[in-house]
Amino acid sequence: MSFPSYLDLTNLQALFPKDFSPSELAKAQTVFLKRLAISAHDFYGGKMRTVPKAGIYGFGWFGVWYTPGVSAVSTAIRDNNMRSYQLSNRSNLVAVVSDSTRVLGDGDCTPSGGLGVMEGKAFLMYYLGGIDAIPLCINTHTEPDSHKADFNFNYGKHDHSATKIIDFVRMLAPSVGAVNLEDISQPNCFRVLDELQDCGVPVWHDDAQGTACVTLAGMINAIKLAGKDWKSVKAVFYGAGSSNATIIRLMLAEGLDPKNVIAFDSKGALHTGRDDVRNDTRFYRKWQIAEATNPQRVDNILEACKGADILCALSTPGPDVVKKEWIQAMGKNPIVFVCANPVPEIYPHDAKDAGAFIVATGRSDFPNQVNNSMCFPGLLKGCLLVQASRVTDGMAIAAAHSIAKAQQNRGLDIDHIMPTMDDVGVFPREASDVAAQAIKEGVARLSITPEEVFQRADRDIKENREIVQMLMEKEKIPTPPKSMIDNVLKDTIAEIRGQLEAIKGSADE
Amino acid sequence: MSFPSYLDLTNLQALFPKDFSPSELAKAQTVFLKRLAISAHDFYGGKMRTVPKAGIYGFGWFGVWYTPGVSAVSTAIRDNNMRSYQLSNRSNLVAVVSDSTRVLGDGDCTPSGGLGVMEGKAFLMYYLGGIDAIPLCINTHTEPDSHKADFNFNYGKHDHSATKIIDFVRMLAPSVGAVNLEDISQPNCFRVLDELQDCGVPVWHDDAQGTACVTLAGMINAIKLAGKDWKSVKAVFYGAGSSNATIIRLMLAEGLDPKNVIAFDSKGALHTGRDDVRNDTRFYRKWQIAEATNPQRVDNILEACKGADILCALSTPGPDVVKKEWIQAMGKNPIVFVCANPVPEIYPHDAKDAGAFIVATGRSDFPNQVNNSMCFPGLLKGCLLVQASRVTDGMAIAAAHSIAKAQQNRGLDIDHIMPTMDDVGVFPREASDVAAQAIKEGVARLSITPEEVFQRADRDIKENREIVQMLMEKEKIPTPPKSMIDNVLKDTIAEIRGQLEAIKGSADE
Repeated sequence: MSFPSYLDLTNLQALFPKDFSPSELAKAQTVFLKRLAISAHDFYGGKMRTVPKAGIYGFGWFGVWYTPGVSAVSTAIRDNNMRSYQLSNRSNLVAVVSDSTRVLGDGDCTPSGGLGVMEGKAFLMYYLGGIDAIPLCINTHTEPDSHKADFNFNYGKHDHSATKIIDFVRMLAPSVGAVNLEDISQPNCFRVLDELQDCGVPVWHDDAQGTACVTLAGMINAIKLAGKDWKSVKAVFYGAGSSNATIIRLMLAEGLDPKNVIAFDSKGALHTGRDDVRNDTRFYRKWQIAEATNPQRVDNILEACKGADILCALSTPGPDVVKKEWIQAMGKNPIVFVCANPVPEIYPHDAKDAGAFIVATGRSDFPNQVNNSMCFPGLLKGCLLVQASRVTDGMAIAAAHSIAKAQQNRGLDIDHIMPTMDDVGVFPREASDVAAQAIKEGVARLSITPEEVFQRADRDIKENREIVQMLMEKEKIPTPPKSMIDNVLKDTIAEIRGQLEAIKGSADE
Repeated sequence: MSFPSYLDLTNLQALFPKDFSPSELAKAQTVFLKRLAISAHDFYGGKMRTVPKAGIYGFGWFGVWYTPGVSAVSTAIRDNNMRSYQLSNRSNLVAVVSDSTRVLGDGDCTPSGGLGVMEGKAFLMYYLGGIDAIPLCINTHTEPDSHKADFNFNYGKHDHSATKIIDFVRMLAPSVGAVNLEDISQPNCFRVLDELQDCGVPVWHDDAQGTACVTLAGMINAIKLAGKDWKSVKAVFYGAGSSNATIIRLMLAEGLDPKNVIAFDSKGALHTGRDDVRNDTRFYRKWQIAEATNPQRVDNILEACKGADILCALSTPGPDVVKKEWIQAMGKNPIVFVCANPVPEIYPHDAKDAGAFIVATGRSDFPNQVNNSMCFPGLLKGCLLVQASRVTDGMAIAAAHSIAKAQQNRGLDIDHIMPTMDDVGVFPREASDVAAQAIKEGVARLSITPEEVFQRADRDIKENREIVQMLMEKEKIPTPPKSMIDNVLKDTIAEIRGQLEAIKGSADE
């Protein structure tokens, strides 16, 4: 069964008037998607729900699923907690936990403000990874009475506590197979992730580790295409937040020589002379980089870029944050990753003009999108299928190689260094490669063959897609009406033309 | 479509050999259900999962459900937190939270040990209330390092902290529409429930309030049938745990005269002379009863029962915990609720022998089952549909009247004072009555008509049943094989006959 063609969002540009300029078109797409997001979320009342995975063949079965039968399940798990992986849904369940203090590019959105993103993450896990996920956006305010929302849930302005996130996840761990941390601001995110490594289930910070994993995957292919050697490449990192800090760690593990690395934060280059970093212990991850890299204490970005092979920017939205001259100063076949969202630090065509050999961004409308969604569904599925006790850098690196190899098999060129979300085969293979690494490193509680992991992940993903397709076809998930798309389109065009008020005014008449 | 007849568990007794004695038959049913619970939970790997409630008409829709479109959802909720009820699934989502310290009759089952029960609760909410629910069994140990499960999740023996449950729920509140507390041991359960009343969403302790609500419903109909008057009935409460303490509070609100109430805990009758209760402030709810009731300081249970109209026991599993003489001492048309599980404090036929007019228990295989499942799905659905900020005693009492009235409409007699789970009409009506009360008391954030609440609850419940039916028919929920039932039956019969070891031995040969 096919759905009405007005629901096809593949080619958004075609929806807009022909007289829109390229920059109006670009803006219109984002405005359209944001407006449609509001209408569509209102229409459905959110995105994820629960359903049974077990049959109910008459009310007698509640004696099996609930009291008195379920008592045997309670005591079986009590006597051997590992039985919780077989007797409950825990073995396929990920909690997506956020304090909503750094939601996408929108900063602190109050606790409930992260729900749209976290439900979206759960949707991706369902669809791409065959995983069940629950979005938990938590209130980590520590002020007395800060839990007391008023009747309309207005919270005062408060601090946010890393300790509270840690406590929450530790309490939660016995109910889930893994935890995906998301959209937690610096510096809390470092300590939260590191302290939670002993909580018994994998804890993954997608903004840091997920971004690092997909960036590494892209770098593996870019370095291969550029004919460079990991041991000798010179790399400049612009931005030293949780993403780039983790990217540097994984790239060093992959073979990058720390002597060839120079990283910059907003105050300048990192090196052992940076007493401000040394003294603020909350940024200990940054200090580790300052200690290990940039022995010459190069302080100037243009100087650092001279002869460099790689420029990896994860800093602030552009354009014109990364300058053409920097790229012009780089060595042969320069690799430029400019991954700030929603606008890259330099537009790809400008980077190319300046001599970039390969350009990657975070955007789907430019070539070489470096997107976390290529990593976490497969990686977490691999963790779940072997009941991993934690997730290691080695597992993230295995996932990166899996992703890189998927595109190598598909066909590598300078505009295609990364696979895309619709490349369905990537995720089960990634799950399998991650699981194999978990077993190798001794962090898997269950030892099954990579082939079996692949088969089970593949089956679960396909099954999930069939279920959502069935719900859509049977109108258990209603089809959005044409008027929704039409109205959003009309308002988007009016907004871009600056006529929104006029239109709204005339509609009210 | 119908399913194979071996899946029909309506008449379990018929499965067993004709030579089983009545007590063997009773035991066999429980053993069968427990054994089937293990096999069936293993077969399905738990009971509840997640699925999308929103359509995905190509990968372009991830730009609506996730970045960049979802950014508009984050900021819309940030600017008005009440939008979280429309833009996320929060408005239909209940967290079932337990520290697993008093799981059914099995005591402390370790944190993960409660997952089977809490998933079961989520299943009931789905099927009876049209509600999404997530089971969260949490680790509330306070010892340093007690969060560190070893590789096999063995925890040391630790204390359990009420403060940690409170913290957890307060952190969680921004993500859910209501919280159902469950299986939390005394005395923690009192403080946890009371302190959480200001967290912005309804927090319901089903063991206390749910039991009180259904007991009140049964009492309303029993008192009506017995021709008694609330203002003058004398009531004896045996057991003063969280259930009976709440039952007493609701029955006093309903019209019971505190002078006519005598309550007993394991150490004797409650009254102002009980210094032990006064001094242990953790049991402040018990002290409130001691202060308000039993002005004559009657200390003897037989004395208390003399001329009493009601005996309401929620104490320890029987039989022979409640004595025939106590009932014989009661007044005209004595009402006897003996609701300990799995075995009532006195068997109904013995209570009847002793002169009881109406007997109610917690069991489905005796008449007049008093079962929480009649309350929480409808009550919580009512809370959700009006976006209630809390749940009051008045709303619990409204639910009790709704339940009582449902059975009055169906036909009241001494063996039918309560509706049953398969009486599907009860729940939407209950939701509607609870919502109306919430609006009346000013704790509803959304004001919709009772009729609209009824329609929406009714639609959601029917829709949920259709979805699970569809999943079963399309084998997205696999049909358990006949061998599962056969094997469980064989082992049950062997266990009852004491031949299990012999059978297992011969199977190994």
